[in-house]
Amino acid sequence: MNTNKNIVQTICSTDFIDLGMGNPDFNLLPDEILRLASEKAFTKGINASLQYGREQGNGYFRVALADFLTGSLDKKVDADSLFISTGSSSALNLLTTLYTKAGDTVFVEEPTYFLALRIFADHGLRVISIPIDEEGLNADALEDELKKYQPKLLYTIPTFQNPSGHTLSLERREKLIELAEKHDFLIVADEVYHLLPYGNPTDFKENSPSKKHIQEGRKSHQKNSFENLSGLPLKPFALFAKDSTQIASLNSFSKILAPGLRLGWVQAHPKVLKKIMSAGLLDSGGGMNPFTSAIVHELVTSGDLEKNIALLRRTYHSRLNVMDKAIKEMLPSAEYTLPQGGFFFWVRIRGQNTTELRQHAKEFKVDFRQGVLFSANQGMTEYMRLCFAFYSEDEIIEGVERLSHCIS
Amino acid sequence: MNTNKNIVQTICSTDFIDLGMGNPDFNLLPDEILRLASEKAFTKGINASLQYGREQGNGYFRVALADFLTGSLDKKVDADSLFISTGSSSALNLLTTLYTKAGDTVFVEEPTYFLALRIFADHGLRVISIPIDEEGLNADALEDELKKYQPKLLYTIPTFQNPSGHTLSLERREKLIELAEKHDFLIVADEVYHLLPYGNPTDFKENSPSKKHIQEGRKSHQKNSFENLSGLPLKPFALFAKDSTQIASLNSFSKILAPGLRLGWVQAHPKVLKKIMSAGLLDSGGGMNPFTSAIVHELVTSGDLEKNIALLRRTYHSRLNVMDKAIKEMLPSAEYTLPQGGFFFWVRIRGQNTTELRQHAKEFKVDFRQGVLFSANQGMTEYMRLCFAFYSEDEIIEGVERLSHCIS
Repeated sequence: MNTNKNIVQTICSTDFIDLGMGNPDFNLLPDEILRLASEKAFTKGINASLQYGREQGNGYFRVALADFLTGSLDKKVDADSLFISTGSSSALNLLTTLYTKAGDTVFVEEPTYFLALRIFADHGLRVISIPIDEEGLNADALEDELKKYQPKLLYTIPTFQNPSGHTLSLERREKLIELAEKHDFLIVADEVYHLLPYGNPTDFKENSPSKKHIQEGRKSHQKNSFENLSGLPLKPFALFAKDSTQIASLNSFSKILAPGLRLGWVQAHPKVLKKIMSAGLLDSGGGMNPFTSAIVHELVTSGDLEKNIALLRRTYHSRLNVMDKAIKEMLPSAEYTLPQGGFFFWVRIRGQNTTELRQHAKEFKVDFRQGVLFSANQGMTEYMRLCFAFYSEDEIIEGVERLSHCIS
Repeated sequence: MNTNKNIVQTICSTDFIDLGMGNPDFNLLPDEILRLASEKAFTKGINASLQYGREQGNGYFRVALADFLTGSLDKKVDADSLFISTGSSSALNLLTTLYTKAGDTVFVEEPTYFLALRIFADHGLRVISIPIDEEGLNADALEDELKKYQPKLLYTIPTFQNPSGHTLSLERREKLIELAEKHDFLIVADEVYHLLPYGNPTDFKENSPSKKHIQEGRKSHQKNSFENLSGLPLKPFALFAKDSTQIASLNSFSKILAPGLRLGWVQAHPKVLKKIMSAGLLDSGGGMNPFTSAIVHELVTSGDLEKNIALLRRTYHSRLNVMDKAIKEMLPSAEYTLPQGGFFFWVRIRGQNTTELRQHAKEFKVDFRQGVLFSANQGMTEYMRLCFAFYSEDEIIEGVERLSHCIS
């Protein structure tokens, strides 16, 4: 594991286990398939990708990505519905610039991805949070807030949410789109975990996937058989985007390939894409990452991306089970819904202020992220986010054990 | 020349000469040295650069870049004063997000780079333009406007300005910093042409470099000997940044290597860098382009970057002379200052509305950019921007000849 502070964002010393991180494991970063893809790209000729690129992203790359998504999402995806970004944070930042101005209101989930809150703060926005439950964002609560506010956009992580792990039901997805069209706001759906489900595909193909799997505390052990890795969860917002001008689905190669590539895509209606492409930033700099696109292109068409995702799903699935077992054994007071995909456990320990707990965690050479970080209004104080993607199975067990010592 | 509309931003058919483009020549894009650099990076191990990168950019890459700049700028550059960006447009966009909010005022030069105006429009800013002359931005006019407005930032292209080609004198650079400190605005200096001077170094090492070289119309032929390619122009704002918290110097690999890499840097005081690093975008996505940085790193340390710049300077210098000669011969009514670096001629044709002229240009299979594009207040109607970087010498001559037919 390379932990050099000169290179990577998250610093971790070898005797420390930070279960709060949201990074992929260094050992799972696919340098070999990228080396091969890079060789192929240079052999074929990379010259055109060294020029200012087309604003929407290289057309051939978009066709290859659309073919890959058509196979993965089991529904025809059109290359013209894709915009190549430098990752979902960058796309969120761009959409925020284009759809809001300082003082405007945006809606987020409670809890939500804490760094999205930072991006909204940079733009001077008022942030209103909508509670989520086992079926994702609460549509009734949303409707209530819409009586009081006119948001410019709603930021949601509909599938295997960061941090809660919850997945929005199909019924609520449809309701959300209806409300967005009625009240004219943009749904910015951060779908970066969509391609990382660890459940049985049949688990996801119903309206309320979570109903079967709601497990709290020790009960969650009843359901953890995810042998079939071919399935994908519910229809993503990406697939609704074809028919609605109120959706931008953000996705990224960060979780399925490598974050350092800074490459992702937006799937949206032509009207939304037209607005994105009108950005001065794109007119000036051209496409957001032509050179890296040319390399990743080879890896998409060779089938290596698909193989990499399969490897990640097997590995993360196994780590998820290990963390689940470890928490049950060593943190009996922990309450959580077993995640069906993504990177995170969202654990509640009643009566425990996790911000205070974190101050002591370092003594035990362990860390996590305190719940309040993920709240737009200082809530979630009894929660913590634990990641099962970054560490090996042994380290996960060791980390949970240290956490149990810290708590007791 | 690859002209595929699926890949590149600027489409050009083979029998058309668009002298308005601001792109480097396809034939000068350094695919071979990038292939070598890429191989080296993978051989050494690219794993750490596939992870979320450090916000400021890979520390080893910054050290290599600082060494290169120390050699080029003839003054010690500290790696800690550098932030790795995805190009100057992206850095400008980021600084605009962090330093302004909708309704704020920013200052630009008249004329200025037209796509910067588009970025400011996306942020809902009021744009006030300050005239420039042969010595760059007019400091007296700036002082007058500062009595009326409190700008959050001033956007300047101090060296070989796009479009005018003018270079700000040392005296005015110092005055500008004094005013920025007094009135508390940020000087955003877009210095992407700084490393592409084609003049004798002694020409640049005086306070008012332009005085010797002001040539209008046919007279400009008197001065065009740029044999010595070792020299660099005046002290860039980058080198003032060490001592002033009011400067962000933007630079890029787009003009000295390849735009498709989407890689650049900001040189600034620690206080400014701290503000940049506080951006939610960086906290979320990490460093802006770790993978590409790892590859370009190899090319900086091998000396290939320096060789590439020397090649570009020789080639562009020669093209500049060819365009100068062609304009004198075929457009005798053209008035311009002979550029000492950069990409552009800024040509005035008295009595000619260049917006109207451009409507006829396509019939003659030639194009340019009309002056009004570069004006924040609909001025510059008799000017046109011509680029000598994109086309070969023969094409430049042919393009100017077509333009002369169009005008007459």
